[in-house]
Amino acid sequence: MGAALALGERGRGRTTPNPNVGCVIVADGIVVGRGWTQPGGRPHAEAMALAEAGEKSRGATVYTTLEPCAHISTRGPACSDLLQLAGVARVVVALGDPDLRTNGAGVARLRDAGIAVDLGLGAAAARSAMVGFLMRRQHGRPAVTLKLALSLDGATAMGSGASQWITGPQARAHAHLERTRHDAILVGRATIDADDPTLDVRLPGLEARSPRRFILSRTPDLHHPAPDCALPWENLAAPDAIGTLQAIDTMLVEGGPTTAAAFLSADLVDRLLLYRAPIVVGGGRTLPDIGLSDLSEAHGSWAMTDARTLGSDRLEVYERVRE
Amino acid sequence: MGAALALGERGRGRTTPNPNVGCVIVADGIVVGRGWTQPGGRPHAEAMALAEAGEKSRGATVYTTLEPCAHISTRGPACSDLLQLAGVARVVVALGDPDLRTNGAGVARLRDAGIAVDLGLGAAAARSAMVGFLMRRQHGRPAVTLKLALSLDGATAMGSGASQWITGPQARAHAHLERTRHDAILVGRATIDADDPTLDVRLPGLEARSPRRFILSRTPDLHHPAPDCALPWENLAAPDAIGTLQAIDTMLVEGGPTTAAAFLSADLVDRLLLYRAPIVVGGGRTLPDIGLSDLSEAHGSWAMTDARTLGSDRLEVYERVRE
Ligand SMILES: NC(=O)c1ccc[n+]([C@@H]2O[C@H](COP(=O)([O-])OP(=O)(O)OC[C@H]3O[C@@H](n4cnc5c(N)ncnc54)[C@H](OP(=O)(O)O)[C@@H]3O)[C@@H](O)[C@H]2O)c1
Ligand SMILES: NC(=O)c1ccc[n+]([C@@H]2O[C@H](COP(=O)([O-])OP(=O)(O)OC[C@H]3O[C@@H](n4cnc5c(N)ncnc54)[C@H](OP(=O)(O)O)[C@@H]3O)[C@@H](O)[C@H]2O)c1
Repeated sequence: MGAALALGERGRGRTTPNPNVGCVIVADGIVVGRGWTQPGGRPHAEAMALAEAGEKSRGATVYTTLEPCAHISTRGPACSDLLQLAGVARVVVALGDPDLRTNGAGVARLRDAGIAVDLGLGAAAARSAMVGFLMRRQHGRPAVTLKLALSLDGATAMGSGASQWITGPQARAHAHLERTRHDAILVGRATIDADDPTLDVRLPGLEARSPRRFILSRTPDLHHPAPDCALPWENLAAPDAIGTLQAIDTMLVEGGPTTAAAFLSADLVDRLLLYRAPIVVGGGRTLPDIGLSDLSEAHGSWAMTDARTLGSDRLEVYERVRE
Repeated sequence: MGAALALGERGRGRTTPNPNVGCVIVADGIVVGRGWTQPGGRPHAEAMALAEAGEKSRGATVYTTLEPCAHISTRGPACSDLLQLAGVARVVVALGDPDLRTNGAGVARLRDAGIAVDLGLGAAAARSAMVGFLMRRQHGRPAVTLKLALSLDGATAMGSGASQWITGPQARAHAHLERTRHDAILVGRATIDADDPTLDVRLPGLEARSPRRFILSRTPDLHHPAPDCALPWENLAAPDAIGTLQAIDTMLVEGGPTTAAAFLSADLVDRLLLYRAPIVVGGGRTLPDIGLSDLSEAHGSWAMTDARTLGSDRLEVYERVRE
């Protein structure tokens, strides 16, 4: 399942509205097929792995990070049917598919065909790998990651507005990599005015993986010049409107602090990426009010899930705890 | 030397104006004497270790975290003389004593008496263990640690002023322990007014180790009621005045943010203790201006020396990098 999850990562940020599934087929202890959801969402991971395995899939065990689909589409047959036709003996599934067209029907179809099905192996890892797909199905909106570059005292910029640079090159490269893992990026109108950021992916070999770019602004039909890049800037009128964006299941909000506060106030942030530089700024621009009325309310909302050193900076990742 | 450093820790915060030295005497691979600077500064660590070793110190090796003193005082003879009288064969010293009455003279005296002396083993650890003593000798002021309890976004309190509690019980207990390691604690006048803190050491068994308590205030002769505790509050009129405080070589500045900024502006902070809670506050009271004119100036000043988990909070320790 670890290998299937790793294959699924290849599709991260490129398969929306489909989930980035990974699949491995093992026959007699040997990997005979590997697949992952292809850019745009098709072929599915299982179809790709079955195609590679060919005849070897007969009697084999299939590891897949999401329940095989039960619905026939114009773009291909249902994976649960394909698995049955291929004659696999056993399917190990990390996570059930909440899509109403599948939602247990994929597993049921396989079991009806006499195929052994195990559910739940690697479920937590699969859930976080496909968080955007799941958030869309369960809450009707993209999964939102908020990125902030901060000094030790929480400044996102000096009092004067200067924010280049708080963090060093390794942290900035990591932040660029995070862009490739999201369907869209968003910044506030004032950040565009202050920094004129291109928000592309400036990493060798990954330039083509630039996500769609949004500006949070109440000004309708904002036409921001984008001479640097063929992709246009799009407008988002309010944090609450993210649910209406088509084909966007993961969104990286890159600040500034007013925009960050707007998303936090609406409780629309699922993950925090804090890039912290070992500097003390003093009098800097920090996060404005997010509607907290008592300190005790603030506790229990965030759990650290990762921390690492990036050059002289530290990255901390927190996930929103929701009961 | 590790054992000698550990013994020296027993005196931390209780030996000023003397350094908290640790000493171990080893004969034939067996520890025959152990000593550490006693409360108030006397007896010295070497004298205590020699007393325990008695006749066994003849031909033995002595490990001591600071150069043995060369000056005879009304409170006792010079340790370098005592070591010679005891007939030790070798003395291993972590750090030379910058005190002008010793400053190499201790080592010279031992060598003149035919005792082998090695200098430098464990020097970095000894330097940080006796940082207050060294700071006083080299810069004429106490070593200053700034403690702040912060949210992820750098708030030391909510916008309303509420700051109880940002961090949890383990972090607060650790902060209390840090008090016992300092000669004095200081808070700003507004913190006294807002929180009426007792600033004592609320740890079982350590109540008697409460350091002296200062208020930073421009109001002269501030007589703050201290009904809770026999120790009076003392007044400090400005950060720059810390050098004039008698018998205080280590100072823990506990906030609030205005006071923190005053010490940072004057570049009087040697160590940062950041207790960070996994909460986002927004619109909180953050560190005010510290006179920074450009972001590039801020870089290179702080290096992380420790980080640990305290309950759901994180403690980060940074030390000021001075060339
Ligand atoms: N350290 C970092 O990670 C980081 C990241 C980005 C930027 N920055 C710095 O942050 C500063 C800019 O940040 P900022 O806080 O001043 O502004 P900002 O968040 O970049 O942009 C604020 C603008 O966003 C729009 N907006 C905010 N809330 C909204 C809401 N609820 N609904 C609709 N639109 C909303 C408004 O645009 P309209 O006025 O058009 O309606 C508002 O003027 C710059 O100095 C920049 O360098 C730092
Ligand atoms: N999170 C934490 O770690 C933490 C720690 C402590 C306090 N707090 C919170 O912080 C808030 C209080 O902090 P604050 O920033 O408002 O005030 P503060 O730093 O506690 O006290 C400010 C006062 O200190 C004196 N002062 C400041 N700079 C000075 C200077 N350069 N020379 C001489 N005196 C100076 C002045 O007293 P005079 O006006 O008398 O001259 C000034 O009014 C409270 O809400 C408290 O709960 C948080």
